[in-house]
Amino acid sequence: MKKVITFGEILLRLSTERHLRFSQAESFKATYGGGEFNVAVSLVNYGMNAEYVTKIPNNELGISALKEMRKLNVGCEHVLFGGDRLGIYFLETGTSTRASNVIYDRENSSMANLHTGEIDWKEVLTGATWFHWSGITPALSQNAADACLEAIKVAHEMGLTISTDLNYRAKLWNYGKEPKDIMPAMLKYSHVILGDIDTAYFMLGLDKVDPDYSKGDNLTALYDTIFKLCPDMKYAATTLRYSVSASHQRIGGVMYDGTTIFNAAVQEVTPVVDRVGSGDAFMGGLIYGLNEEPLDKQRALNFAVAACCLKHTISGDYNLVTKPEIEKLLSGDFSGKVSR
Amino acid sequence: MKKVITFGEILLRLSTERHLRFSQAESFKATYGGGEFNVAVSLVNYGMNAEYVTKIPNNELGISALKEMRKLNVGCEHVLFGGDRLGIYFLETGTSTRASNVIYDRENSSMANLHTGEIDWKEVLTGATWFHWSGITPALSQNAADACLEAIKVAHEMGLTISTDLNYRAKLWNYGKEPKDIMPAMLKYSHVILGDIDTAYFMLGLDKVDPDYSKGDNLTALYDTIFKLCPDMKYAATTLRYSVSASHQRIGGVMYDGTTIFNAAVQEVTPVVDRVGSGDAFMGGLIYGLNEEPLDKQRALNFAVAACCLKHTISGDYNLVTKPEIEKLLSGDFSGKVSR
Amino acid sequence: MKKVITFGEILLRLSTERHLRFSQAESFKATYGGGEFNVAVSLVNYGMNAEYVTKIPNNELGISALKEMRKLNVGCEHVLFGGDRLGIYFLETGTSTRASNVIYDRENSSMANLHTGEIDWKEVLTGATWFHWSGITPALSQNAADACLEAIKVAHEMGLTISTDLNYRAKLWNYGKEPKDIMPAMLKYSHVILGDIDTAYFMLGLDKVDPDYSKGDNLTALYDTIFKLCPDMKYAATTLRYSVSASHQRIGGVMYDGTTIFNAAVQEVTPVVDRVGSGDAFMGGLIYGLNEEPLDKQRALNFAVAACCLKHTISGDYNLVTKPEIEKLLSGDFSGKVSR
Amino acid sequence: MKKVITFGEILLRLSTERHLRFSQAESFKATYGGGEFNVAVSLVNYGMNAEYVTKIPNNELGISALKEMRKLNVGCEHVLFGGDRLGIYFLETGTSTRASNVIYDRENSSMANLHTGEIDWKEVLTGATWFHWSGITPALSQNAADACLEAIKVAHEMGLTISTDLNYRAKLWNYGKEPKDIMPAMLKYSHVILGDIDTAYFMLGLDKVDPDYSKGDNLTALYDTIFKLCPDMKYAATTLRYSVSASHQRIGGVMYDGTTIFNAAVQEVTPVVDRVGSGDAFMGGLIYGLNEEPLDKQRALNFAVAACCLKHTISGDYNLVTKPEIEKLLSGDFSGKVSR
Amino acid sequence: MKKVITFGEILLRLSTERHLRFSQAESFKATYGGGEFNVAVSLVNYGMNAEYVTKIPNNELGISALKEMRKLNVGCEHVLFGGDRLGIYFLETGTSTRASNVIYDRENSSMANLHTGEIDWKEVLTGATWFHWSGITPALSQNAADACLEAIKVAHEMGLTISTDLNYRAKLWNYGKEPKDIMPAMLKYSHVILGDIDTAYFMLGLDKVDPDYSKGDNLTALYDTIFKLCPDMKYAATTLRYSVSASHQRIGGVMYDGTTIFNAAVQEVTPVVDRVGSGDAFMGGLIYGLNEEPLDKQRALNFAVAACCLKHTISGDYNLVTKPEIEKLLSGDFSGKVSR
Amino acid sequence: MKKVITFGEILLRLSTERHLRFSQAESFKATYGGGEFNVAVSLVNYGMNAEYVTKIPNNELGISALKEMRKLNVGCEHVLFGGDRLGIYFLETGTSTRASNVIYDRENSSMANLHTGEIDWKEVLTGATWFHWSGITPALSQNAADACLEAIKVAHEMGLTISTDLNYRAKLWNYGKEPKDIMPAMLKYSHVILGDIDTAYFMLGLDKVDPDYSKGDNLTALYDTIFKLCPDMKYAATTLRYSVSASHQRIGGVMYDGTTIFNAAVQEVTPVVDRVGSGDAFMGGLIYGLNEEPLDKQRALNFAVAACCLKHTISGDYNLVTKPEIEKLLSGDFSGKVSR
Repeated sequence: MKKVITFGEILLRLSTERHLRFSQAESFKATYGGGEFNVAVSLVNYGMNAEYVTKIPNNELGISALKEMRKLNVGCEHVLFGGDRLGIYFLETGTSTRASNVIYDRENSSMANLHTGEIDWKEVLTGATWFHWSGITPALSQNAADACLEAIKVAHEMGLTISTDLNYRAKLWNYGKEPKDIMPAMLKYSHVILGDIDTAYFMLGLDKVDPDYSKGDNLTALYDTIFKLCPDMKYAATTLRYSVSASHQRIGGVMYDGTTIFNAAVQEVTPVVDRVGSGDAFMGGLIYGLNEEPLDKQRALNFAVAACCLKHTISGDYNLVTKPEIEKLLSGDFSGKVSR
Repeated sequence: MKKVITFGEILLRLSTERHLRFSQAESFKATYGGGEFNVAVSLVNYGMNAEYVTKIPNNELGISALKEMRKLNVGCEHVLFGGDRLGIYFLETGTSTRASNVIYDRENSSMANLHTGEIDWKEVLTGATWFHWSGITPALSQNAADACLEAIKVAHEMGLTISTDLNYRAKLWNYGKEPKDIMPAMLKYSHVILGDIDTAYFMLGLDKVDPDYSKGDNLTALYDTIFKLCPDMKYAATTLRYSVSASHQRIGGVMYDGTTIFNAAVQEVTPVVDRVGSGDAFMGGLIYGLNEEPLDKQRALNFAVAACCLKHTISGDYNLVTKPEIEKLLSGDFSGKVSR
Repeated sequence: MKKVITFGEILLRLSTERHLRFSQAESFKATYGGGEFNVAVSLVNYGMNAEYVTKIPNNELGISALKEMRKLNVGCEHVLFGGDRLGIYFLETGTSTRASNVIYDRENSSMANLHTGEIDWKEVLTGATWFHWSGITPALSQNAADACLEAIKVAHEMGLTISTDLNYRAKLWNYGKEPKDIMPAMLKYSHVILGDIDTAYFMLGLDKVDPDYSKGDNLTALYDTIFKLCPDMKYAATTLRYSVSASHQRIGGVMYDGTTIFNAAVQEVTPVVDRVGSGDAFMGGLIYGLNEEPLDKQRALNFAVAACCLKHTISGDYNLVTKPEIEKLLSGDFSGKVSR
Repeated sequence: MKKVITFGEILLRLSTERHLRFSQAESFKATYGGGEFNVAVSLVNYGMNAEYVTKIPNNELGISALKEMRKLNVGCEHVLFGGDRLGIYFLETGTSTRASNVIYDRENSSMANLHTGEIDWKEVLTGATWFHWSGITPALSQNAADACLEAIKVAHEMGLTISTDLNYRAKLWNYGKEPKDIMPAMLKYSHVILGDIDTAYFMLGLDKVDPDYSKGDNLTALYDTIFKLCPDMKYAATTLRYSVSASHQRIGGVMYDGTTIFNAAVQEVTPVVDRVGSGDAFMGGLIYGLNEEPLDKQRALNFAVAACCLKHTISGDYNLVTKPEIEKLLSGDFSGKVSR
Repeated sequence: MKKVITFGEILLRLSTERHLRFSQAESFKATYGGGEFNVAVSLVNYGMNAEYVTKIPNNELGISALKEMRKLNVGCEHVLFGGDRLGIYFLETGTSTRASNVIYDRENSSMANLHTGEIDWKEVLTGATWFHWSGITPALSQNAADACLEAIKVAHEMGLTISTDLNYRAKLWNYGKEPKDIMPAMLKYSHVILGDIDTAYFMLGLDKVDPDYSKGDNLTALYDTIFKLCPDMKYAATTLRYSVSASHQRIGGVMYDGTTIFNAAVQEVTPVVDRVGSGDAFMGGLIYGLNEEPLDKQRALNFAVAACCLKHTISGDYNLVTKPEIEKLLSGDFSGKVSR
Repeated sequence: MKKVITFGEILLRLSTERHLRFSQAESFKATYGGGEFNVAVSLVNYGMNAEYVTKIPNNELGISALKEMRKLNVGCEHVLFGGDRLGIYFLETGTSTRASNVIYDRENSSMANLHTGEIDWKEVLTGATWFHWSGITPALSQNAADACLEAIKVAHEMGLTISTDLNYRAKLWNYGKEPKDIMPAMLKYSHVILGDIDTAYFMLGLDKVDPDYSKGDNLTALYDTIFKLCPDMKYAATTLRYSVSASHQRIGGVMYDGTTIFNAAVQEVTPVVDRVGSGDAFMGGLIYGLNEEPLDKQRALNFAVAACCLKHTISGDYNLVTKPEIEKLLSGDFSGKVSR
């Protein structure tokens, strides 16, 4: 059976309610999430076997994060306990023309201080077929970047498929390195990357692309440049997102397999309940779709887009939708009719 | 003075808040409602005299349902106490492309186990001018179907106007009978039915209609077939609903009086606060409109559509809007401007 | 440094949550606000020095209002304690085609019973450069109207710029006077007024204007009539608001400086979190913009419109947005993208 | 069948939650209550027929108060609509050594402005056997005092039993009169009064009693003085309350029937959920007990004390306990064991 | 390693908040629990391996119950999906002299309709050392009783230690059998029973014991009678509970091992947050204590009593306390001092 | 006029509600507080002029903390902006035998990284008469300890009265130093210290005192040893706290002035709403009392004890009680009677 290992940080998420501003908040909703964890949750919801590898402090907050993993049936056999604190992020959810706002408070977290050698990746990855990481982990600290590279190399040696969500976060990357210093050595082992071409070029240290690329017919050429730098690459995909406002998104997607460009139809999402994690929902849908047998590349992309759309209706970081709900969208039914 | 008796089940409704999924719910909002009860509430709000007949258990949940009836000034003089439990339904309110979801937990309820002979319909209906029932009651159990037919016959004998909301619920009808086995004998006494032509044909055991009927000019012919099977029929009406998404509805309406087709202009409803009970709001508006003197059939339909639209903005099962608020919409003012 | 004094009533605002109707409310959200206070909050948020002058009762509700002023860094050195009660308004927030509803309960409030002579305006206004009042205060009572005129006259004598939001509230003005009896003597000292032409004409006792005025080229002429009656007038501005529904507003603005008509582009606001105070947000943005150096009249109007739009996304009476958030809209970015 | 008419004001009660102070409150719980209304609720809960007579404004708050009456099955056939506002009281619930605090905001309420002649007491009292009023109504205004006296006189003429809760509220009585100016003319028609001897003497204009009276054997003599001034008097009762703290009360009771002193055993109540209305619960229990047949005076007093104790466990103004729950306490079972 | 299998029903628990009565509830807190499940949670919290066997419906409520099991790390490998509904119980939490109230709504639940033969107990119990069941399961239905007996017999054959909580629930046992018809055949395999002597005698069909037994020296004799009927019996234990009020409990415990009576010191618990599940907490503590090595019978009893006391401070059905927290009480520290 | 400067860290406090455990929390109540800030709030509430000096990050959380200071009218003219994060502490409030639990997450906070030289203490302390600090600040980091010593020295030079709350926090002091390495050099300038003798001896590096000291007559001698090491010392005081449970405290106090031992009567506090900050409330009451004129040492101590008792009834870190409320306790009235 196929088994996916995802690796990254799990955070305490503290969000204001009812679109209140931070200074209006009398309380914060508390949930747990994180980019790669969210991917694992999606995979489990679609029926796959997925495990999350991370490091959490041995206090009640770390234990609560662990309980969340268990509740969602995400494997946690190799979660490490230790370090000083659980990373936190504060979220103020915007609406209409007002943007959401994030305050990261994740420095010196248990995960940011993870060292190489702490995890026996040979053992962790035994029995797994797929390894997923994202650009958030190397953004945390040199330690986390080193630990991530260590994992990637073992996954590569053991022949796992490796997927990567580029996930550029400008508010992180504070430890003196830029993505281009760190990411190329990691991305070269990826079989699947998620992220727009601009970000991929930026992280790989390539020149900025012409903003009109998507209109021209040179999209293939642009992707080919990436594929050349990442010799194992099989699929490069990206969400196409048009933000009408914080409450109204139009979501499509593109995937390239080295030969063909696949496009998914754009869908309307309004109102948005919670946009955070919608990229992870896309990633989760894509990994799931690429693991279906027989493989249907167009369906894999469509599945990812539909999953991404539905995530916008779910509170919290991860996507709590079922495969039949996604299939309903794939069949063209967006009516939201009550089932009774 | 005109007095309407409505008959059916009252349920405890347990709904998640803030569009949370069932598995995210730490609590459920508790209200009480039910299709025919919701109609009675509308009628009272417009100034009519309406009473609800049902059976509830003699425990604190049944008593709470009774308190809700009293609070809303719906007559409850003939409510029966007895049986084992109050029916429950769980509601997860969708948004955007995610549909709402209902879990019924109403088997073996006090109402489902109501027997013929328990209610002295002669006494109950004395002084009343109108009797309303819906297709939900015969869907509950053979007992409930029998009890409903008993009521209809007495109402017929006593010369009341009888209205019916077809209200097909696929998740009910679990006791071995299909609508066509039960409904024709009941519908033949109806003067007013609410429901789309497909449902009417299905419940009357007629062949499925051509899906393009509404575009052709054979709508009158289709309705005439129904009128033939229901010899007392005076009005057949239906909501015309286009679901853009769970959050965005377009609402119109059609009514046929045996001669003429009346149409109401389509109105936009977005966002939707609570769609449940919007059909009951239409029904309530229609009964009210058909009881206005002098009768204005077009206005009756328009009133029903406006009531239905406004219901989408109200939390809970029943429609808490006033006649002036409906009149405002009828006058063409949808601006939602603050009155101050 | 520039300093603005605003004068009016601060109210306890009790609003239902989640669009509930008054009769559904088990609790009311409690905040404090008021037209002119809301203006002061905006100014402070943009970095100006602003103070609020009002009268509140010496009980825990009055003290709570004072704490709100302090929290928001609005000057309160001259707030008077005394009188019997804090004014209250109850708010039911509408949605879609259902309008919001306000119940005023502010008679006999401390502010409504304020007498002339209670405030030493010479002392209060020393060091200030701008005085702001609105049409709400003279609507409360003859006492309040007299006290407001007293303040205006001192401000005029001391050479302050005087701005006025016409703020016509039909549910007030219950003490036997009409606006045209009271307002002309007060408006004649204004340098800036906010309000549509209809309201201005109505309050100045002029004939009702042709409803098609805005389409014709006689807008300048209409404004000139106002300018003639208010000899100090420098700017007349108005929000252009098209209410698609209670949840969807289109907001633009117009300003006239005696010579030129300035127009601001219309912006979509949907969904609306809280419309109350959006006019005050416009006023706050306008006063701020007119105090920027060097003066850019078009930017001042645009700033006011953007502030007004953003207010619709903020719960409560006053506008909790920052100057950079407004600048983002001015730069054309309405995408509401998460900053992270 | 016996029927009780109670008369007084119904208020909107706005209370802070979780023992928060007023200045900490982000929201207020909203319920409706009032001394004499609370008595009516008790009576209905014990199976009696009770009606409340009051005046409320014709706005959504007045209507919400009416819905509360209906919900609780208190008769409201003679409720008057009119006047400007619903009276409000704000409640901060204390705990341990910190006292609860009440802010009254009920001046100029619809009830305070009720005039004599507005209510046709002959019609209202027809069919009733008992009339209940309290010392709160004459404390509101001269108008309310006059209207109350009018009601008392008609009740007297029609031969109803008249009960009175003295209910001295120092924060009311602001209209220039003292209780001794008003109350003697009203109390002289009472058959039952509830209140401690100090208050009775104070309201009747008698000299202050020796604080040690209750220890001495002159209690009978003290009561006899009262009985002499109130020639119809049959029962004088009082709660004996020892406040250990805001969270811990010891409750007993005394009743005198002109001949004998009855005492009820003291009971512990800790913790206190809501003390407001516990006196009304005593009054409700007493009226109920004095109407039981055959009359058992000791049981009537015990019933009142038990009802009072249980009220401390109920949130809100009125007592939501059943007769069996009171009987359980009367049988000596205070264990609070779960029934399952 | 020792592994405990517990067997019974998991319920949706819907409880009012803040001691509200059912009729006051606008919402219900939703959690999941059940007597034997609660025991499993305790064991896991103390570091043991525990699994729960039950049957749940294949809907979102069943899945939510499953998620709760997973979250708490209780094994759920053998949970069956099927049947019509999840059992529900409604809880109104009392306080002071007002008792808590439970409404069961668990008829026709998936677990009540479990048949013998549905569970392969040989497989389920392989690797386990202890089997726990309670008197609730045979009270549900004849089916459930049969299924429970089936499990007990297999556990007996496989040589597991069998523990039983008598858990008499008078509101259940509605299917025409009395405990004495059903329980003796099941209890005869028990090694450990929890329950007071009255209940044990009642369930075993013995004569009612003299209420003064505990004061006399015949306690040993009474227990010996039980031990004779249950030949495998090793330990009989009971909580000694004195209910001062719903908010104040005094908790002790007794255990007999066939030779010696062990007593645990009585501890004060006030205030009580949630009494439900405190017996299960005792049971969980006892099973844990009896599995400690080396065995210390007095400590096992003390551990059970301390666990029971602490449970009263925890919201929800199961006991969320840690072993160190219990050890702190065992060491005599009841001060509740903040650790910081 | 007397002015007090307090110095320390302000934290975001995230607490679970309704005594929930951390792992049960779906949300955290968010307030702001900190030992020395809490003292400043008390002083302002009693009518004194108090200012808080601290360092907070320039993000929305820091700004929210600043708004809290402003709301409470605590001076914040010298608050520094800068550094990376606002310190956080998580609080789980215990009850009965279950203790409260605190998780500190305050490393690398803006305040922990404050350097000497960042604050111009000469300017800050000009016009002030009293400087207050606590043992928390030197426990944070070497930087904070150095910055605190710097402030103390300037205060000493400028002749301010210096008060210190020893506030030993075992979970802090993680930077390699023990209190005895740091505190003696700081305490030697104190005029007033609050803390029990054990803590004082421990922090001053003295031998552990005999646990029975308080029963013997050597208390004076023990204090004299402290006074000798702190030559400026005028008053040493301590709360005498007996924790019956987390919900029930008995609070007394002792003060020594170098000559005489003052004792305050022990008071019962039950139930406890929030114990955190009760020591700060004592400190605030003591500073206030020692600043009253004429000085009454016994009253100062009594005032501190009464303030401490009342704090236990207030949610949040700081004490929101008024001087009249404290005076009521000082007069012997603990009844918690409603004022109405």
